[in-house]
Amino acid sequence: MLENLKKRVFEQNIALAEQGLVVLTWGNVSAKDEETNLVVIKPSGVPYNTMKPEDMVVVDLDGNTVEGDYKPSSDLPTHLCLYKQYPTLGGIVHTHSTYATAFAQSGREIIAYGTTHADAFYGNVPCTRELTNEEIDDAYEWNTGNVIAETVTDIEAMPAILVKNHGVFTWGSTPEKAVEIAVTLEEVAKIALLTEQLNSKTPKIKQQLLDKHYFRKHGKNAYYGQK
Amino acid sequence: MLENLKKRVFEQNIALAEQGLVVLTWGNVSAKDEETNLVVIKPSGVPYNTMKPEDMVVVDLDGNTVEGDYKPSSDLPTHLCLYKQYPTLGGIVHTHSTYATAFAQSGREIIAYGTTHADAFYGNVPCTRELTNEEIDDAYEWNTGNVIAETVTDIEAMPAILVKNHGVFTWGSTPEKAVEIAVTLEEVAKIALLTEQLNSKTPKIKQQLLDKHYFRKHGKNAYYGQK
Amino acid sequence: MLENLKKRVFEQNIALAEQGLVVLTWGNVSAKDEETNLVVIKPSGVPYNTMKPEDMVVVDLDGNTVEGDYKPSSDLPTHLCLYKQYPTLGGIVHTHSTYATAFAQSGREIIAYGTTHADAFYGNVPCTRELTNEEIDDAYEWNTGNVIAETVTDIEAMPAILVKNHGVFTWGSTPEKAVEIAVTLEEVAKIALLTEQLNSKTPKIKQQLLDKHYFRKHGKNAYYGQK
Amino acid sequence: MLENLKKRVFEQNIALAEQGLVVLTWGNVSAKDEETNLVVIKPSGVPYNTMKPEDMVVVDLDGNTVEGDYKPSSDLPTHLCLYKQYPTLGGIVHTHSTYATAFAQSGREIIAYGTTHADAFYGNVPCTRELTNEEIDDAYEWNTGNVIAETVTDIEAMPAILVKNHGVFTWGSTPEKAVEIAVTLEEVAKIALLTEQLNSKTPKIKQQLLDKHYFRKHGKNAYYGQK
Repeated sequence: MLENLKKRVFEQNIALAEQGLVVLTWGNVSAKDEETNLVVIKPSGVPYNTMKPEDMVVVDLDGNTVEGDYKPSSDLPTHLCLYKQYPTLGGIVHTHSTYATAFAQSGREIIAYGTTHADAFYGNVPCTRELTNEEIDDAYEWNTGNVIAETVTDIEAMPAILVKNHGVFTWGSTPEKAVEIAVTLEEVAKIALLTEQLNSKTPKIKQQLLDKHYFRKHGKNAYYGQK
Repeated sequence: MLENLKKRVFEQNIALAEQGLVVLTWGNVSAKDEETNLVVIKPSGVPYNTMKPEDMVVVDLDGNTVEGDYKPSSDLPTHLCLYKQYPTLGGIVHTHSTYATAFAQSGREIIAYGTTHADAFYGNVPCTRELTNEEIDDAYEWNTGNVIAETVTDIEAMPAILVKNHGVFTWGSTPEKAVEIAVTLEEVAKIALLTEQLNSKTPKIKQQLLDKHYFRKHGKNAYYGQK
Repeated sequence: MLENLKKRVFEQNIALAEQGLVVLTWGNVSAKDEETNLVVIKPSGVPYNTMKPEDMVVVDLDGNTVEGDYKPSSDLPTHLCLYKQYPTLGGIVHTHSTYATAFAQSGREIIAYGTTHADAFYGNVPCTRELTNEEIDDAYEWNTGNVIAETVTDIEAMPAILVKNHGVFTWGSTPEKAVEIAVTLEEVAKIALLTEQLNSKTPKIKQQLLDKHYFRKHGKNAYYGQK
Repeated sequence: MLENLKKRVFEQNIALAEQGLVVLTWGNVSAKDEETNLVVIKPSGVPYNTMKPEDMVVVDLDGNTVEGDYKPSSDLPTHLCLYKQYPTLGGIVHTHSTYATAFAQSGREIIAYGTTHADAFYGNVPCTRELTNEEIDDAYEWNTGNVIAETVTDIEAMPAILVKNHGVFTWGSTPEKAVEIAVTLEEVAKIALLTEQLNSKTPKIKQQLLDKHYFRKHGKNAYYGQK
């Protein structure tokens, strides 16, 4: 069932580790099948060096396991919450990548200081508010999805978010694109931190240049890449 | 004698180097055999690229060599001191991993800023006091074990410690788990340092969220990973 | 057509990624053929792991594609602007390498603090002014070339520049030399940032020592390397 | 001639690059043959990926080439100056390794903050004074050796030095030991910088602990490593 999508989700989970975004098993990639609305996700806590494509777990949008020998990632409810609210999403990634997680821990958004940022994100990458004690105690992972949705204003123009004190979620129309955003976010976070070390009063990139770079790659007038 | 445990200890010593936690020969892993109470440890100062499983040294809890052609790690007495005080320990790791050692040198605990930390450590990772001149001059390595034991309050909930001006010790029920904690500690130390650079007044993670993440992975109500 | 030059340009694009200067597809190398004045450049947005030498695009100095199945890099006009103004250039590189881009984002030149810097750059590496809104809206990439030319005073003694809020351009008589400068620039940027962290009032290297190292490697009295 | 020593010097030059201490060709290793007093050194500016053992250059203590097709490293006079002053030296290394060079550029010694440092260096690693204009203009590389000798007080207890605004020299009884010290120095420099970021007022390690660790590995009472 969904063998090809399982293979893609498996490969993107491995890619996360190879790109240095994941230590031990701290990350997960999922994908939603457009036809069946089924979700394929990494199993919980399985070491990457022994994981196989067939270990990926297939669930429906209510979280019932449809196929798979393993328990799905414990972050599954966050993924499902987002897939339900945003039907166009085809892939979601969660990491604790080093520099982006430092921003999340400090409770700060990542300011758009340059074109590297603007090529992927249309503005500062926001950080969610803290969850309340009630949100933590009851349905924590689902509420994490809710607080993300509460913070994001445009799911396409801002394909990433920092979850306060926690880590990173990124998304896209495919799992491959969500992973590409996760790679970009970590690099952009690192350059932003270094930029502030060089000049703690560095202003945000000006709007004209942000627009130029974002729309060079996105939207109907994009001219970057191949047709 | 204990060939399987020697192989595991050897592999975990190699893993330390492969994970980037050890430069040259600055680290060691030991394991205690539950049945015989014998301890298997890395030989002292042998280069990793020529080291073999059969080079591991077997000693009793008083430090007498039971088997092995090499002298054991000079940090052996610290390992033995901890195995004697905490009979449930099955593996101990010592490293000078970069970021964690910087905390140890500065004499600071690693503050629990986020869930990456809370997934493994139930609270701030403490740093020991300085050893006295007398403790340094006489039975230095054994006294290092004593000062660790003096600082740790719950050997299970806090499986790591910083030794002031020195480096890191981590532990667990197996050598594999102790190495996993050493990997986690170094990453958590790096993210904590970066977090403080982004906001030097970042508060500790709130208790509710610390509890949620720690107990998601530990104790009778844990639901992370496979059964 | 120009098969050998295509191969060299391809290899130098791959070298950029292998040296850690390029994340995903964020960089490009071009070369100019001395005889025909044709320019060979990386195609736009093609992943490095599937790119082949024959995918390189051949254009004339006015940007007309002479050979190639792909669209050229969207940064092509910047390259052409520089080749037109400086006929001795044989290779140009563009990257968003981490530390150098942090300097570009903060709008700061890289100060010559040591001989590592002086071996390659005769003085501080400058950062361009911001482009005006008009320059951004109309012919952005060409104007990027113009603002570079406006800032550089000696194309040989200063083979690199930071483009404000953007990234890095480097050049040389061959694409290989331009890549070597890109590698050097990133390392020099990193050491400069760390130098300032150790002593925020570090003065510039003195002129005598700058001269000694620069002219040890460049000009008629150079004595570094083989004949 | 001296084929075995050439092979060792070649291998240690490669080791420098593999350990990440050398970018492009910015480093060199030499060794002195005890019987003949001849010195084997890396050729100047030859790329590491094509360099072979037989490319090493053999010179006498006055710098005359005895064997070899290439020009020796331009830093040769610094090496010779040190071999002449310290007859017990068997190997010398020069690098621009990132963190240690940042200390050299900022003109600061590396303070001994912990046992990682004390295991190799008996006290702070000093930084030379600036060379005078006269010393730079005339016999620069030889004078670099002189200013090193002027700064070092105990060639055995302090096997490394920072040359102001320049980089690092390390040494030992063999080229292998000199490279080991170069690896140690870079790691110690990195941890020291991070230590100061965590606590800018961190005091030096206390003398008792410095003595304990240094003499655990050095001198007649050493008990680290194998006999």
